[in-house]
Amino acid sequence: MREVGCPEEDLFSFLLSRRQEDLGYRNILSSMCTPPHPVAARAHAMFLETNLGDPGLFPGTAALEELLVERLGTLMHFPKAGGYATSGGTESNIQAFRIAKKQKPVKSPNVVVPASSHFSFQKACDILGLEARTVPLDSEFRMDTEALDGLVDKNTVCIVGVVGTTEYGVVDPIASLSDVAEDRDVFLHVDAAFGGMVVPFLDRPVPFDFRLPGVASVSVDPHKMGMSTIPAGCLLVRNPEHFSCLNVDTPYLTVKRECTLAGTRPGASVAAAVAVLEYLGMDGMRAVVAGCMENARRLIDGMETLGYPRAVTPDVNVATFSCDRVPAGWRVSRTRNGHMRIVCMPHVTRDVIENFLKDMSDTNA
Amino acid sequence: MREVGCPEEDLFSFLLSRRQEDLGYRNILSSMCTPPHPVAARAHAMFLETNLGDPGLFPGTAALEELLVERLGTLMHFPKAGGYATSGGTESNIQAFRIAKKQKPVKSPNVVVPASSHFSFQKACDILGLEARTVPLDSEFRMDTEALDGLVDKNTVCIVGVVGTTEYGVVDPIASLSDVAEDRDVFLHVDAAFGGMVVPFLDRPVPFDFRLPGVASVSVDPHKMGMSTIPAGCLLVRNPEHFSCLNVDTPYLTVKRECTLAGTRPGASVAAAVAVLEYLGMDGMRAVVAGCMENARRLIDGMETLGYPRAVTPDVNVATFSCDRVPAGWRVSRTRNGHMRIVCMPHVTRDVIENFLKDMSDTNA
Repeated sequence: MREVGCPEEDLFSFLLSRRQEDLGYRNILSSMCTPPHPVAARAHAMFLETNLGDPGLFPGTAALEELLVERLGTLMHFPKAGGYATSGGTESNIQAFRIAKKQKPVKSPNVVVPASSHFSFQKACDILGLEARTVPLDSEFRMDTEALDGLVDKNTVCIVGVVGTTEYGVVDPIASLSDVAEDRDVFLHVDAAFGGMVVPFLDRPVPFDFRLPGVASVSVDPHKMGMSTIPAGCLLVRNPEHFSCLNVDTPYLTVKRECTLAGTRPGASVAAAVAVLEYLGMDGMRAVVAGCMENARRLIDGMETLGYPRAVTPDVNVATFSCDRVPAGWRVSRTRNGHMRIVCMPHVTRDVIENFLKDMSDTNA
Repeated sequence: MREVGCPEEDLFSFLLSRRQEDLGYRNILSSMCTPPHPVAARAHAMFLETNLGDPGLFPGTAALEELLVERLGTLMHFPKAGGYATSGGTESNIQAFRIAKKQKPVKSPNVVVPASSHFSFQKACDILGLEARTVPLDSEFRMDTEALDGLVDKNTVCIVGVVGTTEYGVVDPIASLSDVAEDRDVFLHVDAAFGGMVVPFLDRPVPFDFRLPGVASVSVDPHKMGMSTIPAGCLLVRNPEHFSCLNVDTPYLTVKRECTLAGTRPGASVAAAVAVLEYLGMDGMRAVVAGCMENARRLIDGMETLGYPRAVTPDVNVATFSCDRVPAGWRVSRTRNGHMRIVCMPHVTRDVIENFLKDMSDTNA
């Protein structure tokens, strides 16, 4: 550390210069995050100093967390779902596995996850000492449910399905997973970190949530398509009592126990998540999602016209292509299979898509 | 969710009404958090949309995270320490245990922690399948090192020492722990979540950090005495290569692997943490800490004058008393032993202390 402090003006010109080294979201086509909605930023600032780790000190903020859980629970067709605001999908997935593992204490527990599942499940398995059994995908990158049943055994504590896979933006056949979960009496966790804020707002949403009787928990991230600030994840569970197995005693706080992974937790991003949902409502979210889906379709059409076929027709706003080139100045990403991957987030507007296609067309020439 | 969105004005009057249900920090004497320093709030806003989960998109913000680690490493007398910004002390403690466990693969691993350790270590043990062996405390609530050696065995993967205990604000004899850790070849993790931003700024700081050869990792939270925004923790390790055992592959990101627990991670609170350190410098932090320590001493003197003896003379700015009463309107907390506990954070100014003592005196009458 420097011995003497830095004048505020010098400090902020230094910070600004660093900030300017970051890419602008305008050219980022690879991220599942997006600049927060203006009402998210405003709500975040209003709640900046709040700490949900000691909710008795911040009962108003804690009420907003309850409201967030209720709103998302209702969106997932189960208003009475239990839940709390996590630091994001990784914490949600770890906590779902912890619950599932405690529900079925076996000597060598395993979990059955699709090959498409997010790398956070690897972390969760490593941490919790769970064997990961990987279900292969079908030709459209969804879990091959034919293969699922054979991988489940008496030591399987959890099955995972994904709603809006990170790489290809497809939705696993959750209804079939729910049947298997019921038949085999296994905890089913749905990772809807991305798709949970997309699918419910589509014209014909496929059921993936608590409407399916086998679904025990759902992860959904307001800091992705919910346009909230980071960190804002949410874990929802059908049986709120399941959280009690995670409780530790919390002497010297205003509450006697807590089930969360983190202790100190920001209230700001929770208020931001609530603000966006309340401000937009179902209608507003439908409009945002419709725009993103329309842009994804336009991108796919445009790329195919240029001779770059889609890898798959996605269920959510993630577009993938057989295409090795990238025009200068754009940040796309690659799937493990080598496909070009573009996430049509709200900041990836129609203008951005057209500019990208124009640059692709020039590259092509 | 509501069908139609809520007008912005109505939304923010609703959010404000919730915010007003929260307690003001002015009357919160029980928290290890504090309102962020103004430069922290300003830096936070500047970096609100950044995501350290994909550092290649935000190289300027990632450089600030490196700067934070370097500054804190230097403060802990080891500028070459490895590290990253965590979501707080719980993640730091979990990650330290993960590293320690992987360094010594034994069948039934245990960790040796003082009875005073934070409840996050219970979570970490539960998650990681570690047996927790609790070292009793001496009469001043520090780890009884006489008892330590007998608890360490060939299955001990980690010893924990605390710098600034949550309940009594004392510092474990880390030098002795370091000796045991070296003798017995065990990983020593120092939980300095609170004290790491206090002890280095005292007039006569006791060594607790990488100067002691047995110390392998240190947790320190800028969102506590570092006056940053939430969430801002930091895990530092002596051997940066230790992080590689936590790596998972991260296809479709700008980096190929990551060792952090969370995926998406806020850059805003990291920029905020850097801003405070740079703005205040060693001199400024010494002044803040001196003020808090002076206030703690004044509070102890005042309480003892009123007939409420201290439970212990603390090493950091946490004051504890034999006192069953609390004047109306104040939020203090209780240790597990029933002592009144007051954390003299920067927002607990001399005026606040005097007002509290006045109210205590009225209660007394």
